[in-house]
Parts: sequence; structure tokens; C-alpha cells
Amino acid sequence: MLSVDTRGVFVISATPFDDSGALDLASVPALADYYLGHGVHGITLLGMMGEANKLTQEESLTFVRAMVAHIGARVPVVVGVSHSSLHALRDLAHASMQAGAAGVMIAPPTGLRTDDQQFSWFGDVCAALGPDVPCVYQDYPPTTGVFLSASLYLRLAAAYPQIAMLKMEDNPGLDKITRIRAAEARDEVRRTSIVVGNGGLLLPQGLARGADGVMTGFGYPEMLVQVYERHTAGDVDGAEAIYDTYLPLVIYEQQPGFGLALRKEILRRRGALRSARVRAPGPRMSATDVVELDRVLARLHARLS
Amino acid sequence: MLSVDTRGVFVISATPFDDSGALDLASVPALADYYLGHGVHGITLLGMMGEANKLTQEESLTFVRAMVAHIGARVPVVVGVSHSSLHALRDLAHASMQAGAAGVMIAPPTGLRTDDQQFSWFGDVCAALGPDVPCVYQDYPPTTGVFLSASLYLRLAAAYPQIAMLKMEDNPGLDKITRIRAAEARDEVRRTSIVVGNGGLLLPQGLARGADGVMTGFGYPEMLVQVYERHTAGDVDGAEAIYDTYLPLVIYEQQPGFGLALRKEILRRRGALRSARVRAPGPRMSATDVVELDRVLARLHARLS
Amino acid sequence: MLSVDTRGVFVISATPFDDSGALDLASVPALADYYLGHGVHGITLLGMMGEANKLTQEESLTFVRAMVAHIGARVPVVVGVSHSSLHALRDLAHASMQAGAAGVMIAPPTGLRTDDQQFSWFGDVCAALGPDVPCVYQDYPPTTGVFLSASLYLRLAAAYPQIAMLKMEDNPGLDKITRIRAAEARDEVRRTSIVVGNGGLLLPQGLARGADGVMTGFGYPEMLVQVYERHTAGDVDGAEAIYDTYLPLVIYEQQPGFGLALRKEILRRRGALRSARVRAPGPRMSATDVVELDRVLARLHARLS
Amino acid sequence: MLSVDTRGVFVISATPFDDSGALDLASVPALADYYLGHGVHGITLLGMMGEANKLTQEESLTFVRAMVAHIGARVPVVVGVSHSSLHALRDLAHASMQAGAAGVMIAPPTGLRTDDQQFSWFGDVCAALGPDVPCVYQDYPPTTGVFLSASLYLRLAAAYPQIAMLKMEDNPGLDKITRIRAAEARDEVRRTSIVVGNGGLLLPQGLARGADGVMTGFGYPEMLVQVYERHTAGDVDGAEAIYDTYLPLVIYEQQPGFGLALRKEILRRRGALRSARVRAPGPRMSATDVVELDRVLARLHARLS
Repeated sequence: MLSVDTRGVFVISATPFDDSGALDLASVPALADYYLGHGVHGITLLGMMGEANKLTQEESLTFVRAMVAHIGARVPVVVGVSHSSLHALRDLAHASMQAGAAGVMIAPPTGLRTDDQQFSWFGDVCAALGPDVPCVYQDYPPTTGVFLSASLYLRLAAAYPQIAMLKMEDNPGLDKITRIRAAEARDEVRRTSIVVGNGGLLLPQGLARGADGVMTGFGYPEMLVQVYERHTAGDVDGAEAIYDTYLPLVIYEQQPGFGLALRKEILRRRGALRSARVRAPGPRMSATDVVELDRVLARLHARLS
Repeated sequence: MLSVDTRGVFVISATPFDDSGALDLASVPALADYYLGHGVHGITLLGMMGEANKLTQEESLTFVRAMVAHIGARVPVVVGVSHSSLHALRDLAHASMQAGAAGVMIAPPTGLRTDDQQFSWFGDVCAALGPDVPCVYQDYPPTTGVFLSASLYLRLAAAYPQIAMLKMEDNPGLDKITRIRAAEARDEVRRTSIVVGNGGLLLPQGLARGADGVMTGFGYPEMLVQVYERHTAGDVDGAEAIYDTYLPLVIYEQQPGFGLALRKEILRRRGALRSARVRAPGPRMSATDVVELDRVLARLHARLS
Repeated sequence: MLSVDTRGVFVISATPFDDSGALDLASVPALADYYLGHGVHGITLLGMMGEANKLTQEESLTFVRAMVAHIGARVPVVVGVSHSSLHALRDLAHASMQAGAAGVMIAPPTGLRTDDQQFSWFGDVCAALGPDVPCVYQDYPPTTGVFLSASLYLRLAAAYPQIAMLKMEDNPGLDKITRIRAAEARDEVRRTSIVVGNGGLLLPQGLARGADGVMTGFGYPEMLVQVYERHTAGDVDGAEAIYDTYLPLVIYEQQPGFGLALRKEILRRRGALRSARVRAPGPRMSATDVVELDRVLARLHARLS
Repeated sequence: MLSVDTRGVFVISATPFDDSGALDLASVPALADYYLGHGVHGITLLGMMGEANKLTQEESLTFVRAMVAHIGARVPVVVGVSHSSLHALRDLAHASMQAGAAGVMIAPPTGLRTDDQQFSWFGDVCAALGPDVPCVYQDYPPTTGVFLSASLYLRLAAAYPQIAMLKMEDNPGLDKITRIRAAEARDEVRRTSIVVGNGGLLLPQGLARGADGVMTGFGYPEMLVQVYERHTAGDVDGAEAIYDTYLPLVIYEQQPGFGLALRKEILRRRGALRSARVRAPGPRMSATDVVELDRVLARLHARLS
């Protein structure tokens, strides 16, 4: 089960579709094995890069069950269950936990404005989930339009024991880590796990500020694992050197919205997906994009060799 | 079937829950009969005031089937099917049509920014729905954050024959009606039906500008019907007199977000619902709110008597 | 000087331009006398309906000086000084106070997201203004996109003694008044003045909830004065009857953005302005709009006679 | 004068303040010489990183005059004149041109929603400026919330001959360059200059797509110049190698809002500014931030040596 002590690299999984846009369950083993083969410490399903909002509720659960069944006890699985309907959120969360998930991830819905609204909404979420479902609080303002201050997170963590982890993708967000860790050090609040995201952007700085790991999608998850493991082993310089090597691709993949098409194409090229299809409405790569990606990858491979 | 010639008052139905928040199917007959008894010309299910975004997909379809079965052929039923997932949108739309709905209503998802994005998104919607599902295009920027110019609507209407009706809740929006009707009069675009909303706000002006009716929720749907029918019969002054009588309640009910609690309480008091429950996260009336509503309604009843 | 005990109707003044769009100082006496002649208890300059954001800093100060000089000690004058530059804000505030203003009004700039950001920003404002400038905190989310919870206002009022008054235009906002007044009654925070706005919308309810008055623009300010004075005298029914009589115009004028063109045209017709000109970019009335306004006003005059 | 043929690196200048927050005109020569010494082809004043929105109108013009006087004819100067008031915008634009500026830069104001609103607003801007002021259209949605499609830009460029250049900071935006260049190649629209921004992010890709240069702030402007010049000389690989070397700092500086504090500190360390002061409300570096920046710069210097 996910806990406040959970650490490491949780890769956010793509959701595989075939060329018609149908859920491609046949890709599940290769996709999961791809991530596991690169040494990730956990897998997150149905995150924003997992096209969660383009699935029906039935498809969501089908995909979760297939992935969890294949992954088994090898690494913990977190399931994104964000939904405007607390009933739908609860249904998916409970079914996922029953299927073997280690916890769920929830982002605030678009439209929450004040600190009190966000605090009250998460109280409703916790009441719907019950006390036994460990939660990741997803702070992702570029998509939600909802902003989380350090002080509000401290209020949330104090009030809601279900929160095991903060997934932080606000940018700038480094100071937020520092403030939360400082409050914990002053014993003002219990310690929770913090993971950073954004495709690995500023990962070395996040780890140095006290993050316990990273939860994000990136076409080459081995970078995330190597940076995390070297950093944890004390080789901060080595960690940054690896980060720098991959940085041009991190940046290139990090194009908001469009990056998903790039990531799925990279996963396809690396054998993790049979089709790079992104469900409509979603980005498509043009011929120019393909040439550009070829070049970005060729340069990465040259640096790696 | 909904068509470009559809006219009249389409009331947006509440969705009934019991005091525990569960879908209350037992209220369906009373609720439908309440609306029908007040003479509405159509009923719209799962609009924003129908708490569509708080239902699971299964609950949505269950409610649609129960309402359509009870209403039968008495009036056409429109079903709100907006969803970030085109698969979920299509599933609900097709199942609703199969159950006997006359058409579906779709609002653009939060996050569309440019005219081209909105145009392209609706192309994806039409491709998902197929050519046989008549659509209401819902222009509701206060909730969606997506804005529709008159010129973009003309582009949409020209490109997508599925659009039968525009439901307009932008404010200000009167000039938009005038511009669309003027373009139709110049034969620049086929004529589509236009209905206004916003709880009846500025309804007389909307009808005078060329709207074909109104699609909205309001606790006293007889007001909408009477205003529409008098206006259509040429009694514009009589229509406005009725509107003015109800206006203090229109305004009071029109408090964004909170108004839903007021409407469901009014429906409960008038026997259309057994519980005024709004699903969490949602508004709750305080004791002060109850006293205030009592007074607003007492004054309305005094004016009516 | 504005204080926490200030009460009454503060009309928000239009800013007069001539037909070329130049500041029309010659209209100042008629405009001020128009408001004073209708019995307002204060005048607010350079509010949002005062087109403050379309003036140069020099024009702003010129207009303030002309109005204050003409009004003299008859009623207190509040000046809107909101600006992204604290230097510009401070300059206008200090010059206005020196010219004889009773206080200044400030809205948070677009882009503030969390409670802490809003709190910290206002600390910067107070530091820039110094301790001797009484402030009205303007809560106007439709334009600013910044939201103020009751709890945040209590924090602001406790921390910043410069705050004399809250101008509240959030909708829904009635519960916010109740919560603030309840906290004051429990001695959790000092009492401050609260005025409502929104063109008078829900004014009777606001006063019943504990508002001390209203600060807004409306073409017929005598309505605001009569409603306030009857309500204060205990004639709540009489206050509401007047409100209801004007309500169709309140609603009609309240069309966001466009309403300014209507208000300036009404002021022109009533002799308060020589030109109804709104500075570009801004709304213009079409021929259809003129006919519509004629009708709205004719019906108002019929009800009043 | 700025023209559709303008190319190269336009660095966006910081605005110097002393430790009290006052405009520091004494820093003007060192600051301008710093940029010129690194070989920039133009300098842009009062961009968003120039804290334009925190200056009074008088300060803006004072700073422009001082910079233009010092720079003289060495490189063209562009002045950001964005303002909600077209009178203020025009005054600063005309005074800047009279002082010797080569053109002005304008971003759409927050609140424009539809393509037509943006198109109409820029018509008002052009009418205010007159035909003789060359304009840079600033596409910067992260701050403005206003989005520009390729098709809308083509409409703007066709309608308004004042537009000489598009400054593009939308992300993703590479495809927008490709679409605009394709339309120009099909002779659908006159060619205009395009420069990219975002601190140099994705600069090699932007140049490959057809951008004529870059207009942005970055602590080490020599990177921008070297990347541009190598790319233009056909040494695409060499350009990318330089870009990659600086990329960790590009990313680190690119933290929205906070990055300005980092940039001014870098400029201070490199002798271009006497104080790193950012005007309130604005970011401040903590002790942790200083240590982090030290490390980022030390690693950059190691890669460069």
C-alpha cells in the first residue's frame, strides 16, 4: 500500500489504443514490461498523460484490471481517479483497490477558486473514499487551473490522513517543497511523501529540496531511474550529468498537450506500444514533426553512445 | 426528432436524489408530470442544472431511460451528453437516441481556446456521433470558459448539418442573436433554431431578437410557457408583464452555482421532488437562506394573487 | 474620511468623454450635481464602470481633482486606484487624498491565485500606501478572476487596519456577508463596513444580511437611495417594492461589459452627460439596441407613473 | 525602422532598480553595453521581463529615453507599450518613436476571448497608433490568457499593415510557425518576421521551422547570438551543441514569474546591474535559491570551460 514513506520513480503509463482508437489490451504486457524492465519503482495508471479523460468508466476499469493483473506484486500501482462525479471517482477507486492497486491519485476539478473551496472539496472526496484508500494529491495547475499554496497543503495533510503523497507539478514549485519540508521539520505537520513531475523537468533540484522521487511520464524512463538512484546514493553530480544528457528530449517532450503524441511515438519506436495513436480530440504528428523528432532522438543517441 | 424548426419552452429538468444522495427513480413520474403539467414543449435532461457531471455513466443512462419512458411521445426530450471522452459522449448519445430521445446537447470542454480549436473539436464530435443525431450546441461560457462568436457559430452551422439548435447563455448575448438572424436573412447560412437560457433572464428581449424559445431551468416553468406563448401570440406587453412579476425570483434563483439548491427546494415544495438534495460537492441552504427564500416566494405569491 | 462606520449609497460615477473620446471636463459639474441631486451619500470615481483602465495616469488625476473640487465637502469621494504598478497606485492614491478624497478602492490584479498570494499582495499595497489612507477592498471576481473567501477577508481585515470597507460583487455573495457578520458578532475580528454592488442586484437581500449600503453604478441612482433609506428606516417591504419596480432595468443594465454603453446613454438622456461615448475598445449601441432600450425605459416610466 | 525583414537576436532588457525599488538610471549605460557587448542585433525594452506593468507611465518613458539615447544607432530598439488604455499605449508609442525607437510591441489585454474580439481590438490599436508605427504582435498566452491561432494571425497580418513581426511564445508553438510560413509560401498572405521567445526554449527547432530570430531575455545573451549565428551560417549541429550546453540554465531561468529574480541576479553578478532588486509584488530569492543558483551556474561554467 502507498504510504507516507513511499519513495522512488513512479512512471505514468500511457494508455494503449490501436489504430482505430479502441483500447488495445493486447499491448498491456509489453507496455508494463517495458516500464518494469527499466527499473521503475511504481507505475501510475490513468494520469493526465494516460488520457484518463478520454476513456469511458468501463474502459478505465478494464485497463486498470489488466495492468494490475500483469504487474502483480512487482511494483505498487497508483490509479488516477479524478472525476467531477464523486460517485464515479469512488467507484473507480474502490474497484481499483480491490483489483490490487496501492493507492489512488486525485486532482482538484477545474472551477475551485479559494483555499476553503479546495479544502472542503477534498473533505467530500475523503468522505466518499472512506479511510482505507491512500491518496496522492495531484497539484497540476496548468490543466486544472487550481492552485495549491504550501500553507493549504499543510492544512490538507493535517486534516486528511488519507493523503500519503503530494505529486507536485506547479511551476515554479521548488520553494513549495522547501516550505513543506521546513514545516515538517518544525513538527507542525506529519511528514508526507512528495514526488515531482513535469516530465522530469528540474528533477535534480526537486530531489535536492527534499522530494522523495518523481511521478511522471517520459519516453526514456531509465533516465528517471538513474537520476533518482544516483542522487539517492549521494552521487549528485552523476545524477545531474545524466539529467543534462536527456534534457533536450525532456524539453522537447514537455510541449503541453502536444508532447503526448511525441511520447507515444517514442514508446512505439521502443516496442512498448503497437500504435502511437492518441484519442481524438488530441494531437497528431505532422511530417515535419516526425523529421524533428528523428533529429532530437538521433542527437540523444549520439550523446548516449 | 429535434430540427431546425423546433420551437418553444424546453425546461431543463432537475435530477432527483434521495436524502442519501442516491438517484431517486421513484421521483421520476412526479417530476416529469410536474413539467408536463405546466405546459412545457420539451424537456432537457442532464443539463448543467441536472448535475450531469456528478453522475456515473450508468446512472445517466438509467435516468434518461426512466424519464423518456415516462414522458413517451408527449414532448421531445433532449439529453445533455457533454463529456471529455468522445467515447463516453457517443455511448450516452446513441443509447439516449435508441431510448427515444429527440436529440442531444453538447457543450465544448473547458480548455478550448481559439475559434479553430472549437471548430475542430466539434468536427470530432460529429464524426463520433454520426449523421443521424440532431445536436443542440450549448454556448455556456460561465461554466465552460469557452466563448462563441456569432461568426464562429455561422461557420459551425454551415459545416456541421447535425446542428439543429443553438442554446445561448452567453451574457451579453442579445447582439449575437441579431447577428445570426441577420446572416440567415442574407442567406449566408441555413437557419437553425435558437433558444435562450439563463433561467429566463432577458427572455422577452431574446424572443424579440428572434429566438425560437427558451431552454432553461426555473422553479416556476409556467412563467416560461406563458411568456413564450403570449409573445408568440403577439401580446408582447402581456409577455413582459408576466416576466416582470417573476423577475425577483428569476434573479434570486440565478445565483451561479448556489441557485441549484434553491431550485431543488422550490421543486420539493411544489411536489415535484421528494428531496431537495444536491449531490456533493454542491450548495447547501443555511437557515438564513431558508428564511430568505420564504420571503422571496411569499412576495411572488402576493404579486400573483 | 472613510471609516469602518461609513454607510449609505456610494454611486460609482461614469467618466465623461466627448464624442472624440477626449476627457470631457466640462461635464463634471452636471454629472456630479446629477448624483448629488438624487441624494447619494458618497461618490466613487474611477471604478470599473468609470473606465479607469482606459485613462492615462494624468487623465485619472485630472478627473479626480475636477470632481473633488466640485463636490467639495458635500459627500465623501472614494477613488479607484487599482493598478499593476504599486508606484502608479500609490501616486494616484496620495494625490487623490491630497485633493480631498475620503479613501481609495483597490481590486486585486488578475493572476493572484492562492489565499496567501492575495494576502501578501495586499500587504505590499498597504506598505506602499502608508497607514493614513483608508481603503475599500474590492471583491470583483467577474473581472479580476480573483476570489475572496469569507475566511480570507477576515484574515485581511485583522492584519491590515487600512481596510475600512469591503465592496462585494461576488455572486453568489450573500452567504459571505452572513459569515463575516457572524465572525464579527463572535468578536473574532473588528467590524468593517460592507457595501454590495452589481448594479443593485439582490440589494434588499444584501441589506438584510447586514450590508451597510451599496456602491455601484445605476442609471437611476434614486432607486438605490430610496431602497437604502426605506430599508434603514425599517420599511423593508417598501424598499423591496421600489427595487422590484426598477428590476427589469437593473437586469438590462447588468449585461457584463455592454451595460456601460446603456448606462452612459441613460445618463446622457437624463442630462448628466453631454455624450454617451465609451472609449475604445468598448461597447457601442446598435440601432436595435436603441429601440430595445427605449422600450425598457418606457415600461419603467409607465410603472413609475 | 523595424520591418518584415528584420532578423536576429533581440534581447529583452531588464529594467534596473536600486535597492529601494527606485528606477536606477545610472545603470543604463552598463546594462545597454552588456547586451551590445554580447552582440545582440536589437534590444527590446519594457517587455514582461522588463517589469513594464510595475512602472508609472512617466518612469516608462524616462527609461526608454535613457536607453535609446545611450544605444543610439547601434541596434534597433523595440518598446513594449501594451496597456489597457489605448491613450496610454499611444502616448508611450509615439513618444518612444520620437525618441528613436524602431518599433513597438503590443500584447492583447487579458479578457479577449474570441478570434473576432482579438481582431477588432487590434484594429482599435492600429487606429490609435496611426500608419507609421511598426508593430510586433506579442503572442504570450501564459500571461495574457489570450490565444492566437495561425489562421487568426494570417487574418491580422493581412488586415493590418502595421504588423512587422510576430513574437511567438505560445507553447506548443512550433506548428504555428510552420503553418504561417506555409501560407506565406502559397502567397496567401504577405511575409512577416517571426521571432521566438521563452528564454530560448526550443530555439533550434524554431529557427529550423522558419523563425527569423529570437526575442527574449536570458542571462547569457551570448548563447542566443551564437545559436542564431551558427544556425544562420548553416552550422545547425554547432548551433544545437551550444544550445544544449546552456539548456540547464535556460530551464532553470524559465520558472514562470520566479525566473525574473534569477535573471536579475545573474545580470548583477555579471556586472550589468548594480542591484538585482525586483519591484514588489515580485519574487525574492531565498538562501536556498542562492545556493541552488550557485550550483547551476558552476555547472554551466564547468561545461563552458
